[in-house]
Amino acid sequence: MNKSFILHIIGWIITIEAAFMVLPCIVALIYREQSGFAFLATIGICLLTGIPLILRKPKNKVFFAKEGFVTVALGWIFMGIFGSLPSYISGEIPHYPDALFEVISGFTTTGSSILSDIESLSHCILFWRSFTHWIGGMGILVFILAILPMAGGESMHILRAESPGPSVGKLAPRMRTTAILLYSIYLFMTIIQVILLLLGGMSLFDSLTITFGTAGTGGFSVKNDSIASYSHYVQTVISIFMFLFGINFNVYFLLLYKKFKEAFKCEELKWYCIIVSTSIVLISFNLGGFKNFFGSIHHAAFQVTSIISTTGYATVDFNKWPTFSKFILLILMFTGACAGSTAGGMKVSRIIILIKTIGKEMSYLIHKRSIKILKFEGKRIEHETLRSINVFFVTYIAIFAISILLVSLDNFDFTSSFTAVAATLNNVGPGFEVVGPMGNFGGFSDLSKFVMMFDMLVGRLEIFPMLLLFAPGTWKK
Amino acid sequence: MNKSFILHIIGWIITIEAAFMVLPCIVALIYREQSGFAFLATIGICLLTGIPLILRKPKNKVFFAKEGFVTVALGWIFMGIFGSLPSYISGEIPHYPDALFEVISGFTTTGSSILSDIESLSHCILFWRSFTHWIGGMGILVFILAILPMAGGESMHILRAESPGPSVGKLAPRMRTTAILLYSIYLFMTIIQVILLLLGGMSLFDSLTITFGTAGTGGFSVKNDSIASYSHYVQTVISIFMFLFGINFNVYFLLLYKKFKEAFKCEELKWYCIIVSTSIVLISFNLGGFKNFFGSIHHAAFQVTSIISTTGYATVDFNKWPTFSKFILLILMFTGACAGSTAGGMKVSRIIILIKTIGKEMSYLIHKRSIKILKFEGKRIEHETLRSINVFFVTYIAIFAISILLVSLDNFDFTSSFTAVAATLNNVGPGFEVVGPMGNFGGFSDLSKFVMMFDMLVGRLEIFPMLLLFAPGTWKK
Repeated sequence: MNKSFILHIIGWIITIEAAFMVLPCIVALIYREQSGFAFLATIGICLLTGIPLILRKPKNKVFFAKEGFVTVALGWIFMGIFGSLPSYISGEIPHYPDALFEVISGFTTTGSSILSDIESLSHCILFWRSFTHWIGGMGILVFILAILPMAGGESMHILRAESPGPSVGKLAPRMRTTAILLYSIYLFMTIIQVILLLLGGMSLFDSLTITFGTAGTGGFSVKNDSIASYSHYVQTVISIFMFLFGINFNVYFLLLYKKFKEAFKCEELKWYCIIVSTSIVLISFNLGGFKNFFGSIHHAAFQVTSIISTTGYATVDFNKWPTFSKFILLILMFTGACAGSTAGGMKVSRIIILIKTIGKEMSYLIHKRSIKILKFEGKRIEHETLRSINVFFVTYIAIFAISILLVSLDNFDFTSSFTAVAATLNNVGPGFEVVGPMGNFGGFSDLSKFVMMFDMLVGRLEIFPMLLLFAPGTWKK
Repeated sequence: MNKSFILHIIGWIITIEAAFMVLPCIVALIYREQSGFAFLATIGICLLTGIPLILRKPKNKVFFAKEGFVTVALGWIFMGIFGSLPSYISGEIPHYPDALFEVISGFTTTGSSILSDIESLSHCILFWRSFTHWIGGMGILVFILAILPMAGGESMHILRAESPGPSVGKLAPRMRTTAILLYSIYLFMTIIQVILLLLGGMSLFDSLTITFGTAGTGGFSVKNDSIASYSHYVQTVISIFMFLFGINFNVYFLLLYKKFKEAFKCEELKWYCIIVSTSIVLISFNLGGFKNFFGSIHHAAFQVTSIISTTGYATVDFNKWPTFSKFILLILMFTGACAGSTAGGMKVSRIIILIKTIGKEMSYLIHKRSIKILKFEGKRIEHETLRSINVFFVTYIAIFAISILLVSLDNFDFTSSFTAVAATLNNVGPGFEVVGPMGNFGGFSDLSKFVMMFDMLVGRLEIFPMLLLFAPGTWKK
């Protein structure tokens, strides 16, 4: 294990996080809020820790897959620890595990909150809270790759470990170009959404924070009722952008290079659209169908795009919806949106590939000799990919089951415990009952909160970086 | 598709079912119950349908895997249809889908009931209800193989399709010997349990019916409070036998042939014991630990063996237990007991193999070049086996998700809908809330009941026979 190199990168992470904290400082200045000092103090701590780590040159450049996993896992944990300091130091979230939970929920773009009264927080803390979504959405390590010149090997391992989906990282021949392009598209879409929200009469502060939450598919709002009190126009804009940020960024790459045909032939995109539209139709009917046709469609569309993109914003208390609609949302939580987007969940491509294996098995059972070749995106699915998707699925369910057991020690009801874990592991945010869109995670014990923090990180980093961090084999020579 | 041969076997199934119905007729005679005539009528219908089918000699003997699947799936459906007639004709279960639900729940050894007052049924119907568990536990087709001389090919395909677990059917060199041995062990253990219950002062009727429910790991009781009103001795005997009937029958084979070492080296048995004992300890503590030490252990042991063996008997209303204990039970529902036993669920061996793949993946991610060979029961797990287990797992979860969606249209609460499907798909019987051990399935719509009947059959026949029955590819030339 090349510890010196890993520490070097972590030094970069902490220093860049300090740079990001300049923005909430400005917000504090504008609103003349005392909590700004907490950010200044944290920036000081970050620089004092980060810069010495950067200056210590790594002894060697050996950097394999396992170094990549460990760097990413540790990097995200440290981002959380330092990121939680402002709200803790300022006293706005006085219980430390809560402060950590809130910021890990931010960085992992989950959006689960321990707060019962969001509006009582200062603007700078609210801004930082939402901004963590934006940083976490694309990944801070991708950001570092974009600004730091690095050799190919390590950057590839890092990008692989941080990017969501079964097979990304082949977007552009050079990693740095890829990273820059990813962030450019991300920034461009963010700006467009901010402009559209401003046009709807939203304040600049709300436009920025809500857009951060949308772009990262996070879901932290700045109002207690999430998005319910905004206008229909604003809700529709957010809904469309949640949908867009759930699309595989490959598609935007292709559009950028004017490969329109290829872009619209994307199989994952097709299934994503089918799942979204089917869910909207089913929920609209379940909500009352023709009685309040447009109202049903509006809220169904918002909640479906919100949940499948694992954002978690809400325009209504969908916890009060009929059970059928709730189960559709629950399934969408696990599905998640496209690989290579900012969304969580298992990803549409994995689900489709898994379903295709069922079809293959059936035709195999009927005609023993038939060898049906599984294809995805027009290409044959390699045995290797299939194996890793299968293991991913099994591990996901296993972590889900163990987490539920631990969280259920708090003795909340079945639905709350179940959906609390589903909402955090899939980086969605709200679940049902106690943790419904109008509820919060504040009532859970510290043990449960730590379990869910682990789950949020597991979900965001697609399981293995976090698991390998705790595997003894990783640390053996 | 060799339809004439399939119909020939189905003829046998119906005729043998008629023979089995002689027993409830005797019960009706003893208790002088009118419902006996319903059995006589059904026997007549069975013979009029079955015997002509037997007499029509099949045109050819072509019998492949797909014929095996279709025979088993159709055979079980017809068993259900004819088996439901007595309770329907007698008027004791006047709504036909309910009568069908009850008997399919019986044959598949699920034990979910639509009845709110079990004790109001006549003895002969109660006897038949429990007896279907006993028939379904080992499988009626296995029974047919035991009494009918058949060529090797077809019997192997049938045994494979009907027996639970990933790789049974290699028990003895000849299929007929295997089938006879299986039923002998089954009968022997049944008799021992009946004797032990009689020694506990239980009536012969109760001893027989409760033993049928235990042997088949079914769970239909003859009392409204399941097993709660029986003595501690009786409860302990039942608990031990539920555990024993959850063990892989391979182990009993080996014991029979005096291969004690091999029998106790069985890896699945080891894990089964570990899971059972860990669950008992955890639940005992959760229930209050040292306050009522023996009471906690007694009820924990009963419910754990009942749920993991997917029997579903209850000595207490575990629906009122703390959430942690309930989630342990829920996980045990999906685990199920050993392959090659009469239990439902996914089976311990599959779960263990799936968990082993996680370990393999992790060591693969750490050292790209390491090729760790996965072993189970001391043998290398073939790629083929692994693939089929993975597909099994994915299909299981997929069917579970779709079933929940359909059942949730009834708008029962989240927990009831979720556990109703879990309890039927895994052939357990009771779930939580509305379908808890003191509740029943009577309130669901007919659609939900048919979905759950499908799930019970899917669970009992391990998915693919039922799925292939409805796949267009099966019926193509």
